[in-house]
Amino acid sequence: MTDLVIKNATVVTCDQNGTVIADGGVAVENGRIVHVGPSAELEALAAKAREVVDGSKHILMPGLVNTHCHAADSLFRGLVEDLPLEPWLQKVWKAEGAILNRETTYLGSVLGFAELLLAGVTTVMDMFWYPDEAVRAARTLGLRISTGGIFFDPPGVTGHDLKGRIAEAERFFDEFGRADDVFPAILPHGAYTVSPENLRVAKEIADRHGALFCTHAAETRAEQADVTSRYGRSVIRHLDHLGLLGERTVLAHCVHLDDEEIEILARTGTSVAHNPMSNMKLASGFARVPDMLSASVNVSLGTDGAISGNDLDMWMALRLAATIHKAFTGRADAISTAEALGMATNAGAKALGAADRIGSLEVGKFADMILIDLKRPHAVPVFDPVTHLVYSTAKSDVRHVFVGGRQVVRDGVLTRHRIEDTIAAVEDLQPRIAASIA
Amino acid sequence: MTDLVIKNATVVTCDQNGTVIADGGVAVENGRIVHVGPSAELEALAAKAREVVDGSKHILMPGLVNTHCHAADSLFRGLVEDLPLEPWLQKVWKAEGAILNRETTYLGSVLGFAELLLAGVTTVMDMFWYPDEAVRAARTLGLRISTGGIFFDPPGVTGHDLKGRIAEAERFFDEFGRADDVFPAILPHGAYTVSPENLRVAKEIADRHGALFCTHAAETRAEQADVTSRYGRSVIRHLDHLGLLGERTVLAHCVHLDDEEIEILARTGTSVAHNPMSNMKLASGFARVPDMLSASVNVSLGTDGAISGNDLDMWMALRLAATIHKAFTGRADAISTAEALGMATNAGAKALGAADRIGSLEVGKFADMILIDLKRPHAVPVFDPVTHLVYSTAKSDVRHVFVGGRQVVRDGVLTRHRIEDTIAAVEDLQPRIAASIA
Repeated sequence: MTDLVIKNATVVTCDQNGTVIADGGVAVENGRIVHVGPSAELEALAAKAREVVDGSKHILMPGLVNTHCHAADSLFRGLVEDLPLEPWLQKVWKAEGAILNRETTYLGSVLGFAELLLAGVTTVMDMFWYPDEAVRAARTLGLRISTGGIFFDPPGVTGHDLKGRIAEAERFFDEFGRADDVFPAILPHGAYTVSPENLRVAKEIADRHGALFCTHAAETRAEQADVTSRYGRSVIRHLDHLGLLGERTVLAHCVHLDDEEIEILARTGTSVAHNPMSNMKLASGFARVPDMLSASVNVSLGTDGAISGNDLDMWMALRLAATIHKAFTGRADAISTAEALGMATNAGAKALGAADRIGSLEVGKFADMILIDLKRPHAVPVFDPVTHLVYSTAKSDVRHVFVGGRQVVRDGVLTRHRIEDTIAAVEDLQPRIAASIA
Repeated sequence: MTDLVIKNATVVTCDQNGTVIADGGVAVENGRIVHVGPSAELEALAAKAREVVDGSKHILMPGLVNTHCHAADSLFRGLVEDLPLEPWLQKVWKAEGAILNRETTYLGSVLGFAELLLAGVTTVMDMFWYPDEAVRAARTLGLRISTGGIFFDPPGVTGHDLKGRIAEAERFFDEFGRADDVFPAILPHGAYTVSPENLRVAKEIADRHGALFCTHAAETRAEQADVTSRYGRSVIRHLDHLGLLGERTVLAHCVHLDDEEIEILARTGTSVAHNPMSNMKLASGFARVPDMLSASVNVSLGTDGAISGNDLDMWMALRLAATIHKAFTGRADAISTAEALGMATNAGAKALGAADRIGSLEVGKFADMILIDLKRPHAVPVFDPVTHLVYSTAKSDVRHVFVGGRQVVRDGVLTRHRIEDTIAAVEDLQPRIAASIA
């Protein structure tokens, strides 16, 4: 029995051929896509489907994949401003230490994930304390998540030593290792906060579980200099030397790379999560995205946390990825619209090792999909839907969001959670947050 | 009699002292602000006001001032992509020539101005053919406009020779020279499309009427090279040499300037309209905004046209102005939030010679003001409202817009025009537009 048919839409599939269907849709059974095609082909399925959605004057496309986020940091949005990464982190860590526990981490995660889901992100890779709370928050709202145990040599928020970190990471696999909605990972913070030995321990756990490995890398010049002075190798060479790179590894940022480092990423099949807004706001710089794409590095997109961003707007990340590199390189074709849209969708799926399940509208994949409203003054005319998605679409154009065929956003409103309650709880906490860095 | 009181809002006045009122509002009489202050001070006026608006959980601020736009070019949004300025312009001009007449210019202007007004822009400087049609469109919706006669040496869309351009410019003053809602200007296209003689003619007309003078300047390296090779001087030196700079002059772009050119702008009191999205997408580069601000050049913000942008989102322009220069200079404090917000408000007012009437919430100024919704997941928490406006606010957060105290947007909907009719008319025209460059 067909659960859901969406038809009459402009379908941007984000498949390998960049297939666009002028008047089409999808059929869904048991949370998976069973047909993608012109509306005419969907009539028979629609006739006996449980639910039919009219996609007229909308673009239907896969949900966006955000490969770098710290959702619970939304609690600290706008708290620490106009500092470069290193002094900024000292203040951020102070605030986190004062405020975060299981309950507040859950609260901040719901806040951040609500923002993501309303803007059409259906899968997020999230790096944060209490990763099981992030899963609980994602399940409250209904989005897919990649997360898992954090590694960080100082005590940090949770105060664990290495043994505690390992135990937490292993527990995460026990609890979520077989779930459809969780892509388990091990997430050490970075080469400047985790020793080579502990990075190796983390990677060993990830490999044993066939899990993802994600860390910050080459975000700033200062980090490159720090790691080089400590270990005699630049960040990417250091990670490569330790055997941490490969097709299950996602490196967030990669702003400062030389040609050989780009080649290392390409050779090892390592994915990059590009976070243009965070990199700009913290004055980290412009990542060499066109060069990485030329070298066939898989470059995906992230928002980073709202504490640096200051929001979790993947449409902003997409627009920036498509435009800043044109200005920086002086080439108006430095990034094509297809490349940019791919970074926000199928490249994210590939980074998460889930290209067989998410990132495009294709038969057999999860029915993670969004409908974009075209009845807005800024959405007229549309000569090419891909161009429209990359250069003109705003987060507020996302009207409906489905994850595994279940509608989680309807007409711009979450279906499974009263966000007003979350907002009220954050406002109650706000004075304590403000006081935490005073 | 008080016409309108807005109270209980977080008021960001954008006045010279950056005054913020935690719980306050404004009172309006005859289209002007008669009081700005805490809500308690407004109670007596509210009791006998015709209308009282509750601004709870909203920021109240002045409407944004967009100092560079070609609104009717919204008809061509997304038509010509991924080319640098010069070959791009050739295609754009071909499409404009095939499509534009009085009627289509009005249509495109309504489309563009609707997008601006819904996003909280209450004054726009617009450079386009048939400037009287732009005024008609602005009046249809209810926003203020600065525009006037275009100068362009080739025939262009309207086919006028110099005499025709002069006649059109003079007619514009006859018709709109005394209107409250029009700031008349003379707008030659640029130093590479208008001869020195004709630029002087244009300036003489502007000066005779005490009007603004606005032109494109130093947008690309190619333009700088072209003007230098023709006239022996770089663009800014050429304009200075011709006596075209000064406090009534607005130069759009100014991406490629040397130190001395920045000094010339500062010395002459010339304003700059910075258009970051257009400059990025056309690969023009990053304007030296921090250096211009250091030299006390008045830098305002623009969206440019949707044909290069590809939208008219002043919040995007504001966010980019606040962030790209941090990445480009490597300084996380390269632009402060106060400077960025000023560029979108009071610097725009100054550029248009209207700092006594618009750009801030102060007694005696026009009641051009907007209410920003704070009940969104991405708007929580707010530690500092200016930071929130610069780094986290999206165009869709603009709920209510007032121009001269009249509500022109209510709950995100235009009050004076059915935008659906405009969208339908643009869609009817769309096949002809697509064919125009085929």
